[in-house]
Amino acid sequence: MQFNYKVILKVIGILLLINGAFMLTCLPFSFYYGEGDHMALIGSGFIAIGVGALLFLLTRNLESNDLRKKDGYLIVTLGWLSMSFFGCLPYIFSGAIPDLTNAFFETLSGFSTTGATVLTDIESVDKGILFWRSLTQWIGGMGIIVLTVAILPLLGIGGMQLFVAEAPGISPDKLQPRIKETAKRLWIIYCGLTLTELVLLWFGGMDFYDAINHSLTTMATGGFSTKNASIAYYQDPYIQYVIIAFMFLAGTNFTMTYFGLHGQFRKVLRNEEFRFYFIFCLGASLIVGLIIFNLGHDTFEKSIRDALFQVVSVVTTTGYVTHDYTAWTSFLTVMFFLLMFAGGSAGSTAGGVKLVRHILLIKNSLLELKRILHPSAIIPVRFNGKSVSRDITFNVLAFIMIYILVMCFGAIAVSSFGIDFNTSLGAVATTLGNIGPGIGDVGPVDNFAHLPMGVKWILSFMMLLGRLELFTVLILFTPYFWRKV
Amino acid sequence: MQFNYKVILKVIGILLLINGAFMLTCLPFSFYYGEGDHMALIGSGFIAIGVGALLFLLTRNLESNDLRKKDGYLIVTLGWLSMSFFGCLPYIFSGAIPDLTNAFFETLSGFSTTGATVLTDIESVDKGILFWRSLTQWIGGMGIIVLTVAILPLLGIGGMQLFVAEAPGISPDKLQPRIKETAKRLWIIYCGLTLTELVLLWFGGMDFYDAINHSLTTMATGGFSTKNASIAYYQDPYIQYVIIAFMFLAGTNFTMTYFGLHGQFRKVLRNEEFRFYFIFCLGASLIVGLIIFNLGHDTFEKSIRDALFQVVSVVTTTGYVTHDYTAWTSFLTVMFFLLMFAGGSAGSTAGGVKLVRHILLIKNSLLELKRILHPSAIIPVRFNGKSVSRDITFNVLAFIMIYILVMCFGAIAVSSFGIDFNTSLGAVATTLGNIGPGIGDVGPVDNFAHLPMGVKWILSFMMLLGRLELFTVLILFTPYFWRKV
Repeated sequence: MQFNYKVILKVIGILLLINGAFMLTCLPFSFYYGEGDHMALIGSGFIAIGVGALLFLLTRNLESNDLRKKDGYLIVTLGWLSMSFFGCLPYIFSGAIPDLTNAFFETLSGFSTTGATVLTDIESVDKGILFWRSLTQWIGGMGIIVLTVAILPLLGIGGMQLFVAEAPGISPDKLQPRIKETAKRLWIIYCGLTLTELVLLWFGGMDFYDAINHSLTTMATGGFSTKNASIAYYQDPYIQYVIIAFMFLAGTNFTMTYFGLHGQFRKVLRNEEFRFYFIFCLGASLIVGLIIFNLGHDTFEKSIRDALFQVVSVVTTTGYVTHDYTAWTSFLTVMFFLLMFAGGSAGSTAGGVKLVRHILLIKNSLLELKRILHPSAIIPVRFNGKSVSRDITFNVLAFIMIYILVMCFGAIAVSSFGIDFNTSLGAVATTLGNIGPGIGDVGPVDNFAHLPMGVKWILSFMMLLGRLELFTVLILFTPYFWRKV
Repeated sequence: MQFNYKVILKVIGILLLINGAFMLTCLPFSFYYGEGDHMALIGSGFIAIGVGALLFLLTRNLESNDLRKKDGYLIVTLGWLSMSFFGCLPYIFSGAIPDLTNAFFETLSGFSTTGATVLTDIESVDKGILFWRSLTQWIGGMGIIVLTVAILPLLGIGGMQLFVAEAPGISPDKLQPRIKETAKRLWIIYCGLTLTELVLLWFGGMDFYDAINHSLTTMATGGFSTKNASIAYYQDPYIQYVIIAFMFLAGTNFTMTYFGLHGQFRKVLRNEEFRFYFIFCLGASLIVGLIIFNLGHDTFEKSIRDALFQVVSVVTTTGYVTHDYTAWTSFLTVMFFLLMFAGGSAGSTAGGVKLVRHILLIKNSLLELKRILHPSAIIPVRFNGKSVSRDITFNVLAFIMIYILVMCFGAIAVSSFGIDFNTSLGAVATTLGNIGPGIGDVGPVDNFAHLPMGVKWILSFMMLLGRLELFTVLILFTPYFWRKV
């Protein structure tokens, strides 16, 4: 047998069981607010659980052989897709989003922690459904942690080995036995931070329901809000600063947070990606803040706060909005467009390219100038004090090239529906980078509802590609994958 | 001594002598049309010749040592810059473009074969000056041939070795002795094709003066026209088809043209880059043609012709215009924007990225998916039936990354002057790619006159960077270059 169907189907079954169970956890809000969305949630939950259980049982009689790499790719992509297909049932059953295209877009936008929405009036949606919407992002974030720590490095995706070598309790020689342990530790951090943010927001005066929703979507770097105006609804500086801090944490390598919580600050400060991430966010915010202050945006504090909020929101690929960054100047529009390609830290819940890849590629490009002058010398890229193998550098370079190719093909495909230049580029950049708001007609104060159906499917594919680090999905489209060994 | 100043200054002296001599060749047109621009040309010519001779003489007493790689970088960049500084004298003296910024922009746009112009009324400029304008592009094209065949491969720039291995009479083991011979052969082709086009255009009813100007700027893939409406002025299909054919030839690897002229068609057809170039131009033109025909642009023949003209013009980085390609649909705007990154064939006078680099990188990216599945296998990229070394692939990848970085920084810099998103991206893409027209406010029916002075200097730098294959110029800004060995 070419693939280990038993395990593949079993895992998908388990994922659907989890999916269904999570749907049922929305019921308390549904009953509390009594807006009539409980039947949709119960129905969807039991369908997901039923199908999951069925798959689980059906695989009993299947033969099993060793799990291979190829099975891994199928599990990841099919897992994410089946979660999204079953995850859109609550929207359809409740009538919040009655058609499949829009409901699937919204659900994948959740599970991929993107945050692009087709809802034009978020506040009118029933609270149970809205909680499910936030929950999809939080589940997606959990998935990403397992993915980056445990699965992608084994599948050899885009230099993710770089990150794993740093994970606590993992040494490359005995990787597998401790993966479970590591994933558990990082999940504890994830849950702990979500809870902390919830408490801080709630005590800061935010409604409990909104506080829990926003903490779920902040930690996932998702960006779904319960308010039409996103975080601009809360003009209280305290709330905005809390969210800035937690967006920054969510975009930090969770391993660094682990080290930080254990007092190993030197390890954190010595980490090149973290230093770059910190300085990059701060530097970009200062530039933006000073520019908008000079433009007469508001007081100095408010200018810096809005700048900090929007920069951190885009760099961490969260996508919350306190101010329309495309409304300032064209310089800032270009800058925010380019910031969409930053992509937070590896090993966080952030999507997109990831800063570590940029660091590696910028270093490598500069070193190439040195290599040209000294063609016989071997000049490797160094990262965190160690030299990076050419295989990994090659892998990262190929990742970036494919990212750009996908970006170009995506923009062409979207514009073929008559979407204008800015919007096409912006929509593809923001979905591929798992951010949320783009530029043009899908800017921070717009939504994705008005786009043609075809465009929504293209953008859904972009979200999936971006979230699964491209290779995982694209490899399924190559002949190499389907060739029997 | 760190640098061989004797040879560097001597070469620049010779270049200025040539520059001055070429200025004087504009005089026949100046006298024939009698518009009073002869004094400007004579003055500029003698200044260039005088300074050139002075440099030549001054270097007599300088010590000389072996010419090293580093000297090569200085010669190329300083050579191009000094040609451009002296080349703008005719514009300034004649008053056609009275200030340095604009005159320098126009001259560098010439020598870099870009074709972006600051002239708002080209037809009102004196004929002698206008001929100088066309001539700068033709000289630039000659320079490029020497550069790609003889200099860049020795300097190890961006995988240009790939091309040289194919050049007639050059085998990698005895490169240097035959370079002169090869350069001469390619120059003969260059001059021969220019002459042929001149005759074809002239006999086709174009005025002799316009025919010579257009053949000079076609073969250089420059795109300066003597008409405000560019080639749209000539609605005769014959003239447009002739120009399409010669743009295509100018964007073809001159080595392939050499083989073709010697009846070695099999060599041409077996060349991967040529095949890709041919199919790419044809395919893109068909897509564009069918789209605009469906939009009701014009008759079927005219739609295909306009499409063919604009696609070949942008892909070969010529920049002539028969129709405003940003006025059709946003899909085509996005498509033409992306076509700006194609960049013709290596070993032609075309600028930009060059198709060979795209082929290599697309192949490498697809193979990376195979490498991920088979991590222990060694899977090299193959080009023209031979496997490409990892060093060259690395070099090409670094080239593309730096191209993108420069593009981003350029767009940020331009937009900081308040230029809008489309125009910023379009202006940088078109100047870095040495094309000419961009999108937005620097589109095919606009010009660059209205841009702020600062933006013009940024774009001038882009033209220089693009023309000299990035590395040649950027290496001068690294500490490695200035460090004493």
